[in-house]
Amino acid sequence: MSLIVSASTSEVAAVFTTNQVKAAPVKVSFQHSRNGGVRGVIINAGNANACTGLQGLRDAQEMTRITAKLVGCKAKEILVCSTGRIGVPLPMAKIRRGIRKAYRKLTPNGGAKAAEAIMTTDTFRKEASTQIEIDGKQVTIGGMAKGAGMIHPNMATMLCMITTDAVIDKRTLRRCVEDSVEQSFNRISVDGDTSTNDSVIVLANGQAGNNPLRSYHPKLEIFQSALRSVMRQLSCMIVEDGEGISKVVEVAVKGAANYADAKAATLAVGKSTLVKCSWCGEDPNWGRIMDALGYSNARIREEMIEIYYNGLQAVVNGRRSKVPEARIRKIVRQRSFTITINLHMGDGEYSLLTTDLTEKYVALNKGE
Amino acid sequence: MSLIVSASTSEVAAVFTTNQVKAAPVKVSFQHSRNGGVRGVIINAGNANACTGLQGLRDAQEMTRITAKLVGCKAKEILVCSTGRIGVPLPMAKIRRGIRKAYRKLTPNGGAKAAEAIMTTDTFRKEASTQIEIDGKQVTIGGMAKGAGMIHPNMATMLCMITTDAVIDKRTLRRCVEDSVEQSFNRISVDGDTSTNDSVIVLANGQAGNNPLRSYHPKLEIFQSALRSVMRQLSCMIVEDGEGISKVVEVAVKGAANYADAKAATLAVGKSTLVKCSWCGEDPNWGRIMDALGYSNARIREEMIEIYYNGLQAVVNGRRSKVPEARIRKIVRQRSFTITINLHMGDGEYSLLTTDLTEKYVALNKGE
Repeated sequence: MSLIVSASTSEVAAVFTTNQVKAAPVKVSFQHSRNGGVRGVIINAGNANACTGLQGLRDAQEMTRITAKLVGCKAKEILVCSTGRIGVPLPMAKIRRGIRKAYRKLTPNGGAKAAEAIMTTDTFRKEASTQIEIDGKQVTIGGMAKGAGMIHPNMATMLCMITTDAVIDKRTLRRCVEDSVEQSFNRISVDGDTSTNDSVIVLANGQAGNNPLRSYHPKLEIFQSALRSVMRQLSCMIVEDGEGISKVVEVAVKGAANYADAKAATLAVGKSTLVKCSWCGEDPNWGRIMDALGYSNARIREEMIEIYYNGLQAVVNGRRSKVPEARIRKIVRQRSFTITINLHMGDGEYSLLTTDLTEKYVALNKGE
Repeated sequence: MSLIVSASTSEVAAVFTTNQVKAAPVKVSFQHSRNGGVRGVIINAGNANACTGLQGLRDAQEMTRITAKLVGCKAKEILVCSTGRIGVPLPMAKIRRGIRKAYRKLTPNGGAKAAEAIMTTDTFRKEASTQIEIDGKQVTIGGMAKGAGMIHPNMATMLCMITTDAVIDKRTLRRCVEDSVEQSFNRISVDGDTSTNDSVIVLANGQAGNNPLRSYHPKLEIFQSALRSVMRQLSCMIVEDGEGISKVVEVAVKGAANYADAKAATLAVGKSTLVKCSWCGEDPNWGRIMDALGYSNARIREEMIEIYYNGLQAVVNGRRSKVPEARIRKIVRQRSFTITINLHMGDGEYSLLTTDLTEKYVALNKGE
């Protein structure tokens, strides 16, 4: 269990899973975050408290009540997150003890331990932070995340908590968070499954004392890119730590007829089981990429397609280029590389950070 | 290589891949099958002749020309199919020798050998046949198929050739074939990838001498269901022989708001990497099924969902039922079982025959 408490009441902006099946903590946190004015977040790992019906809702609410009592605030000022197996009721006796223990161990230097506590199948803890100057004041943005499996845009099985001491109003914070999530967590994929529990929660408690960040503030852009950068670092770490993966691949489509086509083409390639298997085998099997482009909903013309591996052209006019396969093969042997696809149909662009599919992934996900 | 020759000119109906990237043989066969009047089909395995540009088209055409010369007909009366790796030009010297060899070995009893010759990663040959009586005449329908990987509706990486001696006009044959494909090959999935080369070709040479099967023929329904049955048998064999699989699972959704929703829900569950991994691990992890239903485009209400394993209810009102997990666990230990999902939103129904995802599948598809 992990507990985050802000020294003072914070503005909050949160983005939750788009899955129609939402876990109980997501429902509760959604309600609580709408009010604004949040003091803390309580998180448990190992049980998702999803598909647990009314009892699940009651349990999530009880988690906020117990935490609020310890912190000295109202239950609606506490958000709650869970991650783990779906469909099993929370072991509430254990949870109650856990909350109390987390509260006893609360310390300003507890970030690393909190980031460790939310790990499930993660192999390393994920933290990122940055500092910027606004109105002569030092503003800090720090975050932690967990990921590993069930990772796909909108969003991953992932939890991410970010805190900042910036002074910022609720609407502006919400806009910054939505923009940053779109450019980070919504552009990663491990296995194509979108979880029931995804939550990105950003708290801003205003202790930095800068002039309030509003749309006309000259430094808003700087705050926004700092927030995006923290989210991007965390989302890259989630992909790097994808369950059992051996490759991190950026798939970038350009020249699509429009944005929607670019996205469809990118996702078809980045999610294809066969394409992902070939990466695992270090086989530059661009034929499978052509196949995935073909069954995507993006408009394509086979004879216009170009495919590049780290800038080296493997496919020209829909056919193999004169570049020796050995050179492409050398690129896919690296742990990480970029595949750029130009459809030559328009200006649409999209990109996705994704992974290979390995035997180890399957072995890890066979049971729990 | 495999060669099918009809004793006389046949009516033909063919269904090809919906992939926008179509292999050269698909383009050639599409043209040739539109004319009607087909004498034979020439097939090679090992090279897909896809993404091979103009040279690929010329090679596919040459295959029909060489075959036509041997059979003694026009090139446009020959269809051509290829299956194998994408993006590599056909080794035409070898192909030319292969066609001549196949022609020399042509025999009325060569069905089994032909079915073996089109196998790629298939582990057993796939044949099915049936006989029916129409107008006092014996009518035979026989078919062969290959599958194994890149298997997903619309259609699998699969080739299927069916021959019948029925007398049937082109339009009626086409209708029967489209209906049967929809009920068979379009309802199987192994890995979710739709290939560039899929082809189902049905030849009817009329040697049975029945009265022509037209829409008002009283026995048309019997012919149609016989054809569907042959295609279903072949499509089941393709799933049974899915690359590296250990489970065959029928996913049936009912009670969806409409047909499109039923299909979306079925495909989300039947294609989910995590759901397929849990089957491999014999873990009745219905939480992952709920998750997949939630991110599908089907309208759902979590608290209405029921999930059954071989008729045994695991989920009631979106939560686990009182059935002991051990009993569900026993069902998922079988090689094959059915998962029925009732969404209680309407009358929409769909079903899909799919497989688990195994370490062996990944190992088989890492390279070629």
